[in-house]
Amino acid sequence: MKLNCDLGESFGSWKMGMDEMVMPHIDQANIACGFHAGDPVIMSRTLSLAKQYSVEVGAHPAYPDLVGFGRRSMNCSAAEIVAFMHYQIAAMDGMALSQRIEIQYVKPHGALYNDMMAKDDVRAAIMTAIASYHRPIKLMLQATPQSDVHRAEAKEAGIDVLFEAFADRCYDDDGKLLSRTKSGAVHTREKMLEQVKQLNEEGTLTTVSGHTLKIDADTLCVHGDNEEGVKAIEEIRKVINA
Amino acid sequence: MKLNCDLGESFGSWKMGMDEMVMPHIDQANIACGFHAGDPVIMSRTLSLAKQYSVEVGAHPAYPDLVGFGRRSMNCSAAEIVAFMHYQIAAMDGMALSQRIEIQYVKPHGALYNDMMAKDDVRAAIMTAIASYHRPIKLMLQATPQSDVHRAEAKEAGIDVLFEAFADRCYDDDGKLLSRTKSGAVHTREKMLEQVKQLNEEGTLTTVSGHTLKIDADTLCVHGDNEEGVKAIEEIRKVINA
Amino acid sequence: MKLNCDLGESFGSWKMGMDEMVMPHIDQANIACGFHAGDPVIMSRTLSLAKQYSVEVGAHPAYPDLVGFGRRSMNCSAAEIVAFMHYQIAAMDGMALSQRIEIQYVKPHGALYNDMMAKDDVRAAIMTAIASYHRPIKLMLQATPQSDVHRAEAKEAGIDVLFEAFADRCYDDDGKLLSRTKSGAVHTREKMLEQVKQLNEEGTLTTVSGHTLKIDADTLCVHGDNEEGVKAIEEIRKVINA
Amino acid sequence: MKLNCDLGESFGSWKMGMDEMVMPHIDQANIACGFHAGDPVIMSRTLSLAKQYSVEVGAHPAYPDLVGFGRRSMNCSAAEIVAFMHYQIAAMDGMALSQRIEIQYVKPHGALYNDMMAKDDVRAAIMTAIASYHRPIKLMLQATPQSDVHRAEAKEAGIDVLFEAFADRCYDDDGKLLSRTKSGAVHTREKMLEQVKQLNEEGTLTTVSGHTLKIDADTLCVHGDNEEGVKAIEEIRKVINA
Repeated sequence: MKLNCDLGESFGSWKMGMDEMVMPHIDQANIACGFHAGDPVIMSRTLSLAKQYSVEVGAHPAYPDLVGFGRRSMNCSAAEIVAFMHYQIAAMDGMALSQRIEIQYVKPHGALYNDMMAKDDVRAAIMTAIASYHRPIKLMLQATPQSDVHRAEAKEAGIDVLFEAFADRCYDDDGKLLSRTKSGAVHTREKMLEQVKQLNEEGTLTTVSGHTLKIDADTLCVHGDNEEGVKAIEEIRKVINA
Repeated sequence: MKLNCDLGESFGSWKMGMDEMVMPHIDQANIACGFHAGDPVIMSRTLSLAKQYSVEVGAHPAYPDLVGFGRRSMNCSAAEIVAFMHYQIAAMDGMALSQRIEIQYVKPHGALYNDMMAKDDVRAAIMTAIASYHRPIKLMLQATPQSDVHRAEAKEAGIDVLFEAFADRCYDDDGKLLSRTKSGAVHTREKMLEQVKQLNEEGTLTTVSGHTLKIDADTLCVHGDNEEGVKAIEEIRKVINA
Repeated sequence: MKLNCDLGESFGSWKMGMDEMVMPHIDQANIACGFHAGDPVIMSRTLSLAKQYSVEVGAHPAYPDLVGFGRRSMNCSAAEIVAFMHYQIAAMDGMALSQRIEIQYVKPHGALYNDMMAKDDVRAAIMTAIASYHRPIKLMLQATPQSDVHRAEAKEAGIDVLFEAFADRCYDDDGKLLSRTKSGAVHTREKMLEQVKQLNEEGTLTTVSGHTLKIDADTLCVHGDNEEGVKAIEEIRKVINA
Repeated sequence: MKLNCDLGESFGSWKMGMDEMVMPHIDQANIACGFHAGDPVIMSRTLSLAKQYSVEVGAHPAYPDLVGFGRRSMNCSAAEIVAFMHYQIAAMDGMALSQRIEIQYVKPHGALYNDMMAKDDVRAAIMTAIASYHRPIKLMLQATPQSDVHRAEAKEAGIDVLFEAFADRCYDDDGKLLSRTKSGAVHTREKMLEQVKQLNEEGTLTTVSGHTLKIDADTLCVHGDNEEGVKAIEEIRKVINA
């Protein structure tokens, strides 16, 4: 199981995330493409950093909402979603190739990711975008009990997929993340490491009600926003490597 | 001599230019990349239109100034210019390839174009951007008496160049465009067609003071902002084809 | 009954609407505040034009979505809606006062308007924004069978309201506008003028199914996007004045 | 002598500056208005914080350049500068009044500030903007040997001015700040406190070459970007209060 993390989320003079501390410990960097965060200079620097540590790069496209950090759902047509994604993927792809990096996958950001998991038409538009991009590239979705359905949709669309699980989030019995408004939604360090271990060794996790849920994840999403996050990533790395 | 025109300069709900009327008559479409005009949906539509008429596509990158339409010079570092250009070229390149179109050249827009012609450091940064892009692509500059110098700079940088002349603008004896604030800066229809004929047949033009100036142009810049412009393009086309 | 129209919806180099043609015929100008359209220079010019024709000015705030022209619903918190509205109203208010114009009302734009009519929490946030603005200003809502409820909510919030009807749109029996996707959603010229006459003289309109619906409107929304629209406004003006 | 500091320079999800730590120690908060930093939610919060500590508020308008943090000079017409400033001042003014705060002054930001000090036409446009704003408001400029000239210009324009000095910057003999690219441009803690003491007690400072320069400053600009900056502000406060 790999580790992926959202990076390159600074913008202009504003710094976000501890990219230099995180990059050495992860396998996959989801790099912002300018719509919710990231600007061309930041993108270029983050690509260099990924190359330095031989980290795979994914494009991390979003709705066009800088002030809202891409966290607000926006009602876009399928054609808009395809165009927004092509633009962002292409920008990252060409900047990466200019540093001799080949991007491997696309992970939608924030509200676009949530809409992809919740709305069939958004997920279809996203798969159309990936399928109609000029070269093959994988799509990263959340690993859920519906992953088989999503895998079938992807096959139908002619694209490859990756599934990710969350290290620090508590799941409900339906395989959804417990809302952050609920207590226990975000695991303690100890519980997080247990969840990582269980996901890695058994391909399951324990839901909020104590049930065991099968979650088949290729990669684990981790967060490097602050020093606590970086420490957590280092410990997760040890569990995975063990 | 080819005809090139700035297209795809609408944005969101705002329409600019008569792209559908212009595209059938030109050879090269300079398509806006989102920084001064154009958005992903507009870019996608303009690329389709170019393909329909087998028109060559060039990326038309600009300074990041939407409200100023890229017409204000912005003091950017070389690294910023390279990153801004890579981002915009790559976005256009990947969107074009997804429609089986290969973009052929880059023509900087507005103040970035003017700065390229006036400032050595900006021109050097632009050439560095083109040279470090992951595949060969030509740079379009203004044809002037300095074209040999610019050709040598480009050779040094390892890139190919195209030179353009302006159909409707009066030149001074130094080969610069007469400032739009001066009377006679923009030719009448008749004078414009004479200038086109002379450029096409003799590779020269007559300056404001009546001197004959050698201008070696691969392509001629025309404007399709309104019905008058479209009619002018049709007449220029006839002169070129004659 | 007054006539109101959305104006000042150009942006930078992009022109939208025939403001100079429309302004002489209307009573109330809803002027864009920079979030979906309008920029400071456009705002200033549109305010001057309104003053020239002694037209009342309303602020026309929107969600922050320039490329989407404020037509996409964005999931904002009440605090965000209040701050977004205060910012836009204040910007317009101070610019207007600097031209010795006092803005009279606020009419939310596009998706913010639709959300105001459809979602109780958005309408509550909008009323809170108006009520907490530093001086009294009216809120313009759509005149519907729920207008009494909305009037009561406004009274509770401590604000004054205006209600508007639509000249050219067909209503369903619930007092909602027929979706633009349905045939007959937008009236012919003849039907539009009949609806205006009926609204003005009897305070009612005839719904899609032929029922008579009481609609108590202070003002009528008209559109000046093109020459047809401007002609329609002139004819509506005659009907109202008759 | 008062202490002023740039605050409210966060944007959306990006945090900048230690506003909560700085506000208790300063007299005047220059709050960003959305063009280079700040968004309506941030502005509202920063105004609340200023009110809590009874700190005077100034609008801190900039060129429209978010990704460049307003640090790049942009070639704007006088009409554009007036409109840009009216919009930003008005937005801040109305939001402040809605919290029962009256803004006292305007301090241009970054490149707009530098252009104000270096270019007569920009300074004239800025004074026109202040003079034509609908209520009196002061303009903050840099205290230099040209302050008498600037004071005369302001009187001519009919506006009041404030002059500021810099606590931590070394001055050349012409009263200009030594370029940050030169060694010694930014004072050590000790030298900074000496400069503050000398400015406060004698109205002079010692230039890079050791000359004594008369600098008549109403207020002192301090920086609260990080913990070091906050500590420096606390020490400057003690020197001023002594």
